[in-house]
Amino acid sequence: MTVTLQSTAILDMHASLEEVGKALEAKMDEILPRPDGLESNIISLHDGHMQTQSSSVGDEGIVMEAMRYASLSGGKRLRPFLTVTCANIFGVSQHAALLAASAIEFIHTYSLVHDDLPAMDDDDLRRGKPSCHVKFGEAVAILAGDALQAFAFQILSSQEVHSDPYVRCELVRTVAKAAGANGLVGGQMLDLAAEKKHLSVDEIIRLQRLKTGEIFAVSCEVGAMLGKAAPNLRNALRRYAHDLGLAFQITDDLLDAEGTREETGKHVRKDEQRGKATLVKEMGIDRARAQAQTLAQQAIAHLEVFDTKHVRHLQALAEYVVTRKQ
Amino acid sequence: MTVTLQSTAILDMHASLEEVGKALEAKMDEILPRPDGLESNIISLHDGHMQTQSSSVGDEGIVMEAMRYASLSGGKRLRPFLTVTCANIFGVSQHAALLAASAIEFIHTYSLVHDDLPAMDDDDLRRGKPSCHVKFGEAVAILAGDALQAFAFQILSSQEVHSDPYVRCELVRTVAKAAGANGLVGGQMLDLAAEKKHLSVDEIIRLQRLKTGEIFAVSCEVGAMLGKAAPNLRNALRRYAHDLGLAFQITDDLLDAEGTREETGKHVRKDEQRGKATLVKEMGIDRARAQAQTLAQQAIAHLEVFDTKHVRHLQALAEYVVTRKQ
Repeated sequence: MTVTLQSTAILDMHASLEEVGKALEAKMDEILPRPDGLESNIISLHDGHMQTQSSSVGDEGIVMEAMRYASLSGGKRLRPFLTVTCANIFGVSQHAALLAASAIEFIHTYSLVHDDLPAMDDDDLRRGKPSCHVKFGEAVAILAGDALQAFAFQILSSQEVHSDPYVRCELVRTVAKAAGANGLVGGQMLDLAAEKKHLSVDEIIRLQRLKTGEIFAVSCEVGAMLGKAAPNLRNALRRYAHDLGLAFQITDDLLDAEGTREETGKHVRKDEQRGKATLVKEMGIDRARAQAQTLAQQAIAHLEVFDTKHVRHLQALAEYVVTRKQ
Repeated sequence: MTVTLQSTAILDMHASLEEVGKALEAKMDEILPRPDGLESNIISLHDGHMQTQSSSVGDEGIVMEAMRYASLSGGKRLRPFLTVTCANIFGVSQHAALLAASAIEFIHTYSLVHDDLPAMDDDDLRRGKPSCHVKFGEAVAILAGDALQAFAFQILSSQEVHSDPYVRCELVRTVAKAAGANGLVGGQMLDLAAEKKHLSVDEIIRLQRLKTGEIFAVSCEVGAMLGKAAPNLRNALRRYAHDLGLAFQITDDLLDAEGTREETGKHVRKDEQRGKATLVKEMGIDRARAQAQTLAQQAIAHLEVFDTKHVRHLQALAEYVVTRKQ
């Protein structure tokens, strides 16, 4: 990280990002099923009279191990940071915010696990480690991704996330929609199709809005929903997240085009090799970088409805995502 | 079907099974996203103020096409039949029961799509048609499965399924748990592991309870939950379903060992070729058949807490699953 370029606000935000990342890692470790057969808290609590007997875990422990491997692997944890930071604006408890943030990170993680499969992006390196299917085999990676998705919805519908069942239903519904064919999965489909045909700038933006933007948006919205935020505030956060997501994705593509494996923790020049449509390729490096800057400023402008002290980390994050080196 | 062997009760049940199957097919057709860009009812309704603009559908339409191909393909529809039949006991509306049943069938369908992948069971035939990945390619099949799972939870959290959000949360939570690492996915993991090692009869039963039993149980429970059934009644249906599921699975294995492709609509002798552990292999054909009969009788015995007129189809179904030829 080129510290000289970073403002105090970005350094403060970065400290908070690291703190949330650690708290999230601990929360996910606590709630993920354990291959040793001890049921996690979130599974055993609040199931009422109908709970099946807890049984010792056999070979299905391998799936749980793979779920943990893929989830507890560091990473920037930007989406959970958005959830927790937005939840903080509305005074939501840290425990509830981290649970909901974990659910979103499980959705993100499952999509990475499936995206790395040979039939998809065929990537053997993720967050500086062998991808899930390289470590556990393809079948286990497919199953671990599937179980992570189910687990995310199990968490979001759990009483611990929010006492009001209307809010829990809204969380499930909003995240499910953002994860599905009209969101994340739709974006990944466009991404695959983009390898075979030329996309216009508008089509690439649409692809990115589905693939990255919807989950960024929902990460912020979940924080707002937990705090029963007014519609205009929730909407402002949603717009912020969409612009942030696009700026983030352009920077990702810039890093792929310019960064090194050591800096980024993953293979670079992949887009070029696979003939992938990116804004960097369409617009050139300089215009793409300028576009990312504009989007970051636009994202910050959406935050004007809030008191500055509540959104300084979100502002700094928008500055950071376009200057990051990994 | 050898009609001479069927009692009137089984014929009545069969008529109801076919009727529910048709109604389910129509409901799924209605609610599944459409590749032509028309948003389905379930997606556009009840999203409140935060709905994103509906946009024309591009290449992500291929995922939707694959979701529809895999879902709208006939099949026995046993799980939805359980949901609708159990919901009927408690006077639940047909519309709500069919929506919840669709969600369960989407979970079942996604698991079949992923299970058929080359890295998993590697099956190119499903319900007498090419498997999803044969028709659309592996990447699309992975994504379609993922989107079907998300869609199931989107439906279960929707107001149309039940006016009480507590019930909707319970539906999401129960189905998510049954679909995850301690249910369906765990069972599939055990199934994969079983190709590499010898399993005892007890271990095979545990595998089947996870792989088939949990979703059968939840299919019945969802009907009971929709009707806010008393715990003892919900529990009775859960036990019925577990025994039914195991009886069903043994018959499936018997059909694989003895049936023909024309009769079953899928490849046969696959278990043997892959060295899969089945109760048929462990116990022999005669003892396995006797075991299935015993389980069917046990399943019927769990229904004694109900008025006979409410559960005659469930009784007949238990008789049917052990005598079926496909």
